[in-house]
Amino acid sequence: MPEPVPHMSPEEFRRVGRELIDWAASYMASVGRRPVTPSVSPGETAAKLPLSPPAAPEGDWDAIVRDLDAIVLPGLTHWQHPRFFGYFPCNASGPAILAELVSAGLGAQGMLWSTGPAVTEIETRMLDWLAEAFGLPPCFRSDADNDGRLGGGVIQGTASEGALAAMVAGRARCRRAMGVEHDDGPDPVFTCYTSEQSHSSIVKAAMVAGIARSASDRARVRLVPTDDGLRLDASALASMLAEDVARGRVPVFVAATLGTTGTGAFDPVPAIAEAVRTHAHPAAGPAWLHADAAWGGAALVCPEHRGMLDGIEHADSLCVNPHKWLLTNFDCDLFWTRDRRSLTEAMSITPEYLRNAASESGQVIDYRDWHVPLGRRFRALKLWFVLRHYGLSGLRAYIANHVELARGLEARLRADARFELPLARSLSLVTFRCRAGDDATRALVERINAGGEAFLTHTVAPVAGAGGVRTPSYLARVAIGATTTEAADVDHLWALIDDAAG
Amino acid sequence: MPEPVPHMSPEEFRRVGRELIDWAASYMASVGRRPVTPSVSPGETAAKLPLSPPAAPEGDWDAIVRDLDAIVLPGLTHWQHPRFFGYFPCNASGPAILAELVSAGLGAQGMLWSTGPAVTEIETRMLDWLAEAFGLPPCFRSDADNDGRLGGGVIQGTASEGALAAMVAGRARCRRAMGVEHDDGPDPVFTCYTSEQSHSSIVKAAMVAGIARSASDRARVRLVPTDDGLRLDASALASMLAEDVARGRVPVFVAATLGTTGTGAFDPVPAIAEAVRTHAHPAAGPAWLHADAAWGGAALVCPEHRGMLDGIEHADSLCVNPHKWLLTNFDCDLFWTRDRRSLTEAMSITPEYLRNAASESGQVIDYRDWHVPLGRRFRALKLWFVLRHYGLSGLRAYIANHVELARGLEARLRADARFELPLARSLSLVTFRCRAGDDATRALVERINAGGEAFLTHTVAPVAGAGGVRTPSYLARVAIGATTTEAADVDHLWALIDDAAG
Repeated sequence: MPEPVPHMSPEEFRRVGRELIDWAASYMASVGRRPVTPSVSPGETAAKLPLSPPAAPEGDWDAIVRDLDAIVLPGLTHWQHPRFFGYFPCNASGPAILAELVSAGLGAQGMLWSTGPAVTEIETRMLDWLAEAFGLPPCFRSDADNDGRLGGGVIQGTASEGALAAMVAGRARCRRAMGVEHDDGPDPVFTCYTSEQSHSSIVKAAMVAGIARSASDRARVRLVPTDDGLRLDASALASMLAEDVARGRVPVFVAATLGTTGTGAFDPVPAIAEAVRTHAHPAAGPAWLHADAAWGGAALVCPEHRGMLDGIEHADSLCVNPHKWLLTNFDCDLFWTRDRRSLTEAMSITPEYLRNAASESGQVIDYRDWHVPLGRRFRALKLWFVLRHYGLSGLRAYIANHVELARGLEARLRADARFELPLARSLSLVTFRCRAGDDATRALVERINAGGEAFLTHTVAPVAGAGGVRTPSYLARVAIGATTTEAADVDHLWALIDDAAG
Repeated sequence: MPEPVPHMSPEEFRRVGRELIDWAASYMASVGRRPVTPSVSPGETAAKLPLSPPAAPEGDWDAIVRDLDAIVLPGLTHWQHPRFFGYFPCNASGPAILAELVSAGLGAQGMLWSTGPAVTEIETRMLDWLAEAFGLPPCFRSDADNDGRLGGGVIQGTASEGALAAMVAGRARCRRAMGVEHDDGPDPVFTCYTSEQSHSSIVKAAMVAGIARSASDRARVRLVPTDDGLRLDASALASMLAEDVARGRVPVFVAATLGTTGTGAFDPVPAIAEAVRTHAHPAAGPAWLHADAAWGGAALVCPEHRGMLDGIEHADSLCVNPHKWLLTNFDCDLFWTRDRRSLTEAMSITPEYLRNAASESGQVIDYRDWHVPLGRRFRALKLWFVLRHYGLSGLRAYIANHVELARGLEARLRADARFELPLARSLSLVTFRCRAGDDATRALVERINAGGEAFLTHTVAPVAGAGGVRTPSYLARVAIGATTTEAADVDHLWALIDDAAG
């Protein structure tokens, strides 16, 4: 027989595991004392690593732990820093981290019900719990019939993957309605719609799905103009749909955003749904309406923020990322549909090696048919731990706290003549600019970020200036939502803004 | 201000974290004493969970840990069981589990270099380390120029996602060569090719990419016949390519499998590459050649198994999943390309909120342009910990041990008149049938699985019977490769086979 394999013994796993639990606890407790962004140059981290892999076991876990401090930490942007205000947050929390540990320890696979019944059933229940926690209409629950199309939710990796799944489901539903799923003639020209302000993942999904020919294919992915609040203009959407249907094109997918990345705009779902229904292709039926609430949806735990759900019962799918602003480590995109049948018909293939009695009984969910990957880890554990640890009241307090902090920052900015807010605060996202102009705003963001005490990002958005003309303007973005951000951190940010604006 | 948020204190995180480290260590050490598969019925696990989420924090971590034992474990298929011989393995290991813990604790995001320089640079280095560990040709290394197309590797979630990325890159490359990426006329008809024995993920990728109209679209996803060893027949592929090109179709993607899921067949890459080159579409150029070594590629750590790399320098991309058989927890699909430019051109979009100086300098890698998701967690840590803990010698011993165990099982089966092996063992995968026929083989698999002491799966493959005629036959599959599988476990399996065959 070959030589023995140097597996970690249970004792060594316990010893190093405890050390790393301590290390992670210390990191979380002290990250606020580090610069938010690193000062490394390209190649600097790589230069600290050997060029070749170790030939033999190193046998020194102390050295590995030391390298986390010496090599990894100096090269990281600290997303968990309490003064990380960039992009959108990407929350980690104690309960979610521990669930990742348990999930990794179990090494389970939930591709089919039969390969991990508890993986599947806990996931289904968590999606139903969150449908309730968010006040979603019953059509998205796993027990909803929806005229035989069934409802239900699944965990996808990211909102990008959720959008792709929805788009593919929409196209397949239209193809089937047209009876061209087995036709070998030329394909109809399929089209997609989303606002000029929506996330790049929608255009990317269209490129991957083969609907767009390139990133700039505006004939097949139509970017709908927005109103002064940077919300999708539903009448412009209606015109585009009507025009495309009249030209023989087949609209298959419309994405509404509930909280855009740039400025946190909420698209008007009722008017969008109305446009989709009214301008359905006569043979293909209505386009699939997907609502991307990746960031904003977290606020649904608070009843006062549920206005965004108006009309949501007309959406075919909806996604929310607890890995952004709901204390559940990446990756965790909640994806609900009220047309499960179209989704799984677009995605399912059953080779012989995956056949099993449970699936063939039709009594179970096989989640591999809800997305691109086959394998899937046990991510529902994170939601279970987070919901049990925080409870709905804790999650509400969490969101309400950040919204309140953002309100305070907005008030300070509005009260100061150096700044202006062309757009209203959206939940915990505040955008602003310097009255002195774009260069001044850019310089302010760069100055704050260079100091390392806080981190902001920016966007460029067509906002109304003097005389009401909309021109692209450079806006600083403050997205409040890191797990441990408190009032003192926003006070600190305000001091930095005050100082940087001179 | 709203009420305080009940975050876990560092002390509580340490206390529960240590408890869960112990719990995971005990699970791993004792999983071999559990039944491999659970005896739960559909709905049984869900019935143990409340119908609604907790309104308030539960505040009792002991109860959560108890529920892991009471609710989760009885509902799991134990993929880490030493007598799990089903599908392909899905390895967990101590070092990889601990890396997942650290990654979760850091909560870092590697979508852009600038959002986590160390996340990106350690990933690039790990892919270069593994290119060396596997003996890949230099064209796949991150420093390879390849006539300006550049090489390099990335971690994708799964081989399904890797295949989709490769297919989309191939289509975009062909579109660009044809000059139709900005054309608004009817699209060319694109086609893909893979063997009848390849993984369902290839057909699924074509459905998602919009190349196949349905799961059964054999005009656009052509399934190439196989030889008696169930390897892709390259001359049949050449005929299909020639026929399609002559009809004006545009072959964009060919997938060769290095270790098929059903029987572990290795497709002949040199002859496939030759067919792809010879039958390139005159305007579009050659199809993208992707090699799927998701399972079999792990064996590349052993020089004696590198025959599968013959001709691999002609492949445009290659993937290997350390999460299958190389001790690195799911998800971790290594994806290398020698045409980075075509991949990133097919995937990249840069909205304003992601613009940054480092990306625009061109000196760094932004991995979000290598795959569908935007966000990405710090998965390279797993590879780093695993390589440092085991060293290449430890990984070689690991693979060699399983191959040796499979060789022993194969010898026992061959020596027993009740069984036959129509196909040779492939690495650590043994397929066999009962001479008494398909029903007997099926009954044998079911009897073993019902006992809970070991778990096998099956495939149906067209193997030569009496007179050399190939007919679909039910084969039992034994995939040896769980992290802790040892000789005693395979002895145990043999006793079960011996007994079940009567």
